[in-house]
Amino acid sequence: MQSFMIKGCSILTMVHGDKPFVGDLLIEGGRITNIATSIDQQVDTVIDGKDMVAMPGLINAHNHASMSLLRAFSDDLKLMDWLDKKMLPAEARMTKEDIYWGTMLGAAEMIASGTTAFADMYVQMDAVAQAVVDSGMRAALTRGLVFLEDDGGRRMIEALDLIDNWTGAGNGRITTMLGPHAPYTCPPQPLTEVIELARSRRIPLHIHLAETLEEVEKIRTRYHQTPTEYLHELGIFSDTHVLLAHAVHLTTDDVRLLRGMRGGVSHNPVSNLKLGCGITPVRKMLSQGVTVGLGTDGAGSATTLDMFAEVKAATWLQKLDSGDPTVLPAEQALRMATIESAKLLGIDAEVGTLEVGKRADLILIDLNKPHLWPVHDLYSLIAYSATGADVDTTIVNGQILMRKRQLLSMSWEEVRREALHRSARLVEGL
Amino acid sequence: MQSFMIKGCSILTMVHGDKPFVGDLLIEGGRITNIATSIDQQVDTVIDGKDMVAMPGLINAHNHASMSLLRAFSDDLKLMDWLDKKMLPAEARMTKEDIYWGTMLGAAEMIASGTTAFADMYVQMDAVAQAVVDSGMRAALTRGLVFLEDDGGRRMIEALDLIDNWTGAGNGRITTMLGPHAPYTCPPQPLTEVIELARSRRIPLHIHLAETLEEVEKIRTRYHQTPTEYLHELGIFSDTHVLLAHAVHLTTDDVRLLRGMRGGVSHNPVSNLKLGCGITPVRKMLSQGVTVGLGTDGAGSATTLDMFAEVKAATWLQKLDSGDPTVLPAEQALRMATIESAKLLGIDAEVGTLEVGKRADLILIDLNKPHLWPVHDLYSLIAYSATGADVDTTIVNGQILMRKRQLLSMSWEEVRREALHRSARLVEGL
Repeated sequence: MQSFMIKGCSILTMVHGDKPFVGDLLIEGGRITNIATSIDQQVDTVIDGKDMVAMPGLINAHNHASMSLLRAFSDDLKLMDWLDKKMLPAEARMTKEDIYWGTMLGAAEMIASGTTAFADMYVQMDAVAQAVVDSGMRAALTRGLVFLEDDGGRRMIEALDLIDNWTGAGNGRITTMLGPHAPYTCPPQPLTEVIELARSRRIPLHIHLAETLEEVEKIRTRYHQTPTEYLHELGIFSDTHVLLAHAVHLTTDDVRLLRGMRGGVSHNPVSNLKLGCGITPVRKMLSQGVTVGLGTDGAGSATTLDMFAEVKAATWLQKLDSGDPTVLPAEQALRMATIESAKLLGIDAEVGTLEVGKRADLILIDLNKPHLWPVHDLYSLIAYSATGADVDTTIVNGQILMRKRQLLSMSWEEVRREALHRSARLVEGL
Repeated sequence: MQSFMIKGCSILTMVHGDKPFVGDLLIEGGRITNIATSIDQQVDTVIDGKDMVAMPGLINAHNHASMSLLRAFSDDLKLMDWLDKKMLPAEARMTKEDIYWGTMLGAAEMIASGTTAFADMYVQMDAVAQAVVDSGMRAALTRGLVFLEDDGGRRMIEALDLIDNWTGAGNGRITTMLGPHAPYTCPPQPLTEVIELARSRRIPLHIHLAETLEEVEKIRTRYHQTPTEYLHELGIFSDTHVLLAHAVHLTTDDVRLLRGMRGGVSHNPVSNLKLGCGITPVRKMLSQGVTVGLGTDGAGSATTLDMFAEVKAATWLQKLDSGDPTVLPAEQALRMATIESAKLLGIDAEVGTLEVGKRADLILIDLNKPHLWPVHDLYSLIAYSATGADVDTTIVNGQILMRKRQLLSMSWEEVRREALHRSARLVEGL
């Protein structure tokens, strides 16, 4: 494995309390081995950091990457029309190969926009895992479990196969979770069994929660509870690491139930905005000590997997909701997209900040552009003006996946070709 | 002047009712002279439109371009702290040369992100106008008029000098307006005089309206009216073309007062979000037949002048506000950023759509990127996933200002250098 040095870049470690400074970063054996104002050491490759900002790679805490094939296929529709008339019929046609190439397309977009790790929930997860291995990304993978009909236990077998066969694959880049889909698709008995299994085998959980008012109504009708109360009563917050996706419609009492939980919430503001869902009570969650990271959800709803859009939308929504422009400032929003998301994936000991000893998952942002000039405050500049297109270099586990905007771990021409003909077949006639 | 053809691109004319199609665009003498599925004609230059979308250049209906020097200088602050402690002291140091180079920086960003025309209100407008001429952009310029102290008539002389000296400059690219700053900075007597002048000389007006709740309170205390009632009573909506910036805090009755007005509203959602101002009642305005376009406001508050961010924010906010994902769909949001903004600037007969006979103000967007692939719906793809960085080519008045992302009408190195040292001086010690 190559050693390399990034010389003379602005460094945002994203460690709470660290100030930006100009310096060098040394990467050896896939890890960050030194960060200092000047490092004098022989390496295989030197990367010029002039006009560049080095920061941890962004971490997308909630995704369905293969839905990139269905990007911009059905926007501006009611949620149920979107789901029933467009997404579900198209997804029903997806083969394992479609899911592989859809994930590769999603990975191409993520790498090109500075995302180094993501949490994913889908089906045919062998294909997703293979795409993660091939693309060089880091991911926490989950087989989504919808318990609306009896399938003779097949889906649970697939969920456990994913965990048994893929955990640690790709030089440790793949971790796994159990994925009961959502309160409204998981009745008490199977959900309790999954929670018990997660607890006994110490497997983290990934579950959607309270994305829409319709879901709140459904759970209210069925169980006379809020979705959060429903999960709480089944014991999900007591011991297990849980990644909650969305968590838009939580009462103040609901938020209190999350206090002290392991894991936390993936806030997905762009998808919530596009679908008209509402504003997640992020400030309340933070005041209760709940970890809040950022995710995109699938490109089927969010259209783009650019995490810089989520950073903007997250801080905008809290400022709007409070009427106070000082809340969720730029630095904090960028921490949500890096170290806080890393906590949700359970990989914060290894990635999420630039620190000596951590895995080298990092990006270089090129400031030599009109919209990123002049430089007054780096956090503001990146949070409020940068987009994924400003990422020049993406590195995961010490491997350079993009350099000068060229994808190195895959052939974009091949991904582009496969995505085109497969997506055309999926949507034909819909 | 060169003739050229763009061959085989996807064409979004943005004319209401037109469907996207693949074809050729012919540009001669600065105008669009033919649009068809295939054009056979000798031209000076052929541009390959493969994987490109041609659409009208975006039009930024409210800007203070030279504030680009203060981008990311004071974010996450209360509006009054932002203004009094940061912006006003820094702006007080601005020389005419600073304003020229600040506008050039803003123009560089706008051209690089697909904006071809903008409305600007500032001071030292000779410098702004010169930058517009030099950069090749189109602009509607206004000297901002704050009537809080007696200046012996100097500001009105400057406002009229701008109109007399610069209207029609740059081969007709510059138009001019009169710019009473806002209801709270313009008492009834001078404001009435400006309105009368505008009416008698048939000059359009550009004015801020009801950006913040503080403004609403101020006007309520002084005049026992809403800001909109205040303007209405002074007769501003009766005959003159008026470009209203922001218009966030309007009651239902206020919106009714705008019915039938000439001009309309520049909605600036990113700035409104970042400053925690609120959600402009866009749906109510549209239902009353009021023209609503999009603007960024200055980079001092919005950080970026990327109009694609405004397109996203505009549709997101209306979906959020209504809880309905079908409102303000992608195509309509893109029309707001093009032809509707053109109406606000009073230049819709010449630009804002791709139509034979109109001035050639247009952009090419490069779809050959992971986040813009595959292509299902072009409007959705561009509104929800494109950013300014996806613009490959920017053309104004038939002159190519950017090609393959290279700025052609200015030296980016020079703009970058000037912006750096000037901005450092402006903010020193603040």
